[in-house]
Amino acid sequence: MTSVDLHPILPDGDTVRILDQTRLPGEEVFRRLDSLDEVAEAIRVMRVRGAPLIGVTAAYGLWLAMAADPSDPALDAAAETLLATRPTGVNIRAVVTELSRCLTATAAAERAERARAEADRLRAEDVELNRAIGEHGLVLLREQAAQRDSRVQILTHCNAGALATAGLGTATAPIYAAAAEGIDVHVWVDETRPRNQGASLTAWELGRAGISHTVVVDNAGGHLMQRGLVDLCLVGTDRTLSSGDVCNKIGTYLKALAARDNHIPFYVAVPGPSIDWETSRPEAIPIEERDGREVAELAGVRLVPEGTPTANYAFDVTPARLVTGLITERGVCPATSAGIYGLYPERAP
Amino acid sequence: MTSVDLHPILPDGDTVRILDQTRLPGEEVFRRLDSLDEVAEAIRVMRVRGAPLIGVTAAYGLWLAMAADPSDPALDAAAETLLATRPTGVNIRAVVTELSRCLTATAAAERAERARAEADRLRAEDVELNRAIGEHGLVLLREQAAQRDSRVQILTHCNAGALATAGLGTATAPIYAAAAEGIDVHVWVDETRPRNQGASLTAWELGRAGISHTVVVDNAGGHLMQRGLVDLCLVGTDRTLSSGDVCNKIGTYLKALAARDNHIPFYVAVPGPSIDWETSRPEAIPIEERDGREVAELAGVRLVPEGTPTANYAFDVTPARLVTGLITERGVCPATSAGIYGLYPERAP
Repeated sequence: MTSVDLHPILPDGDTVRILDQTRLPGEEVFRRLDSLDEVAEAIRVMRVRGAPLIGVTAAYGLWLAMAADPSDPALDAAAETLLATRPTGVNIRAVVTELSRCLTATAAAERAERARAEADRLRAEDVELNRAIGEHGLVLLREQAAQRDSRVQILTHCNAGALATAGLGTATAPIYAAAAEGIDVHVWVDETRPRNQGASLTAWELGRAGISHTVVVDNAGGHLMQRGLVDLCLVGTDRTLSSGDVCNKIGTYLKALAARDNHIPFYVAVPGPSIDWETSRPEAIPIEERDGREVAELAGVRLVPEGTPTANYAFDVTPARLVTGLITERGVCPATSAGIYGLYPERAP
Repeated sequence: MTSVDLHPILPDGDTVRILDQTRLPGEEVFRRLDSLDEVAEAIRVMRVRGAPLIGVTAAYGLWLAMAADPSDPALDAAAETLLATRPTGVNIRAVVTELSRCLTATAAAERAERARAEADRLRAEDVELNRAIGEHGLVLLREQAAQRDSRVQILTHCNAGALATAGLGTATAPIYAAAAEGIDVHVWVDETRPRNQGASLTAWELGRAGISHTVVVDNAGGHLMQRGLVDLCLVGTDRTLSSGDVCNKIGTYLKALAARDNHIPFYVAVPGPSIDWETSRPEAIPIEERDGREVAELAGVRLVPEGTPTANYAFDVTPARLVTGLITERGVCPATSAGIYGLYPERAP
């Protein structure tokens, strides 16, 4: 499936090469990142985005930082810079915390090499996580296909695709796997305001992969479900608690409510590194508030009257009770502590 | 309250003057409509919009048609042209059907004058409907204010404001009335993709009236409700069935689901002429599907990759069970047949 072999991040000599996602879908622009500061900027302004990809990118950021200055203060400063970029996704926290610990225990002279090896390992691991999620999710899509004569209609929100990971994506991996084995799938793609990751990224990658899809505004999903046009919802996550509560792009909660109201299964693709094993209450998840200009303006066009206040919450939390199941690399489980710890017994408290 | 005295439509000599809402919020452009075809075009492309205002505008369209040619064939053709403009809002159907019947029974030579008188009457009636809805809704907002020390936070979707009517609006009328008597209100304004009536129209008119408000993307409302930032939802309707099912701008249903999930009252402002007394099942309501370019492009900016299919359903239906109450010009009632017929006994079957 070379068509989804996007490589949104790749090491390239002494630098990192990224696909600048702020330029999609209009232009396919690759960008070279030479330093930690460039990596942090790329994460902050969302040239790279998606919780798994942000985690991998942060690891390469630590590599570039160590290549420039492998001292303890430089390591601490780099970790702090990266952790300050985006607060909600949990992958970056785990990567930066664990890799910093590992590098602290490594002689300064070997830190750059070690960081690079760890970043490469994390990237390869992400590809494998995606593949396994695709395999487990495929079982669900096969079941859907077996239940009907018509195509399987999936609704997704934001981009939990190849562009959000190093591999086939999380929510998209089962879709790519289903299409590869000839299951007739159609994807309703939520536009996903204010950053339009659905309209600009998911539509772009599904189009490249030749998967049938239709972009709708975020308001439309409930109506589609009422009219029987959605068989299954499938989204990603930036942070899922061990309780099964799912933090994901703002608006996910509304789609989960509509799925419940219309008896439509609502699945979340959750790679292990997106599980937050520490936070116990959803209210404790830091919800990123981004610049209000992302709401007020679009590509230089002003959408609201001059001086109008806007608010820009980037994520919301879908309560576990609305989630049919979590598709992890270890299999599908209920969105409950018992379900999650059943798959990750080594994490059980 | 001259600040909301917007007059989105006014007769002017032998023509009708409208505020061209497609130019807001950037420019305040008035436009003169000289003929039935210009009226139909203005409704179709949404220079005037909002179910009540469309109804009033259609009446003036029949006036212009009769002024040009008062024959029976011209009357039938005019009615047909107007009914073909927008299918979902019920006001225009009632206005065109009733006024056509009335004009058929009128001598041709008197039709123009009669149509003009009826259009003026409908416009004045709409102002009065708004005023009465404002009075009844104000009681609810007073109750909300009495329950808390802080400001009353209202979430609204689309524009059911002064710009959607000939008067103070439907959903906005209670808000303007509350502000006028010193109740501290704050309005969360849903952007309302794809036409952005919230961002461009509701924000504009609330700003002119000096009412505190914040524009958010349509995805945000669920999160706001989860965080306790919404005390009450208040929306308009394009067509409410006698069962209490509410057809309104696409996405309304999602907000009603979130309100229910968070135990927040969800009210709909419904003037009598927006009640459909004939259609019994919500599935029978014609849901307008507009040009997909409204989703694909914004102010000339392309939002999706070239060739990407888009779908553009303009309305959805919120089941009566999710609606706390209907605010009509005759008082507030439950969203049930009993509630509605209790206020409109003359309509009871």
